[in-house]
Amino acid sequence: MPEPPYVAVIFTSVRAPHDAEGYGAMAEEMERLGSQQPGFLGIESARNSDDRLGITLSYWATVEDARSWKSVAEHLGAQQLGRDRWYEHYSVRIATVMREYGFMRDEMRS
Amino acid sequence: MPEPPYVAVIFTSVRAPHDAEGYGAMAEEMERLGSQQPGFLGIESARNSDDRLGITLSYWATVEDARSWKSVAEHLGAQQLGRDRWYEHYSVRIATVMREYGFMRDEMRS
Repeated sequence: MPEPPYVAVIFTSVRAPHDAEGYGAMAEEMERLGSQQPGFLGIESARNSDDRLGITLSYWATVEDARSWKSVAEHLGAQQLGRDRWYEHYSVRIATVMREYGFMRDEMRS
Repeated sequence: MPEPPYVAVIFTSVRAPHDAEGYGAMAEEMERLGSQQPGFLGIESARNSDDRLGITLSYWATVEDARSWKSVAEHLGAQQLGRDRWYEHYSVRIATVMREYGFMRDEMRS
C-alpha cells in the first residue's frame, strides 16, 4: 500500500437468509476482475457467520479509479444480481484515507 | 448516521492463533465504552472464522473525537493487551467518508 492519501471503498452488507446460489463464485470472480483494474491497491473481506454481516474494503489510488470499477459491465451485472438475490441490504461509503499506522508481532512495526 | 463528511476508523486485524482468553469480553466492553464517547456515530464488526481476519469500522463526527477515544485510559489498556496477547498484526486507517449510498430490499432505498 502507498502512503496516504488514497481511497477506501467501504462495502458493508447483510446477506439474504436464502438463495446463496452462485454467490461465492461471483464474489471470487469480482475480486479477481477488480484487482486487475487501473488504480487497484488491495482488498480485504470479513463476514460473520452468525448475523451475516460482511465488510469488504477495497483500496484505490483515486476516486476516479474506484468509480471506473463501479461501472465495468461485469461488475454492473454482479451488482444487479446482488440486489435481486443475495443482499438484504448494503451500504457503500467512499472515503479518503488520511493516516495509517499498524502493529506487527515480533517487533516488526509499520 | 449523518450526511457525509464524517470520519471512519478502519481497524483490520489478524488474531493470534492462541490465547483468546478475555478477548471477547474486552471487545464487548470496548464497544460499550466507545459508544458512550463524544462524537460516536456507530460501529460495525465482522471476522472470518477461517483466516482470523477481522474488520471493525467505527464512525465519528470528527477526527478529534476519534483521537480522544484512542487515548481513553481503559482503551489504552485494551490496546496494550491486544499487542501483548491477542493480535498477530493490525492496521488502523483514519479516513474521511465523502459519499454514501445504499440498497435495502423491499423497495426501501437510502
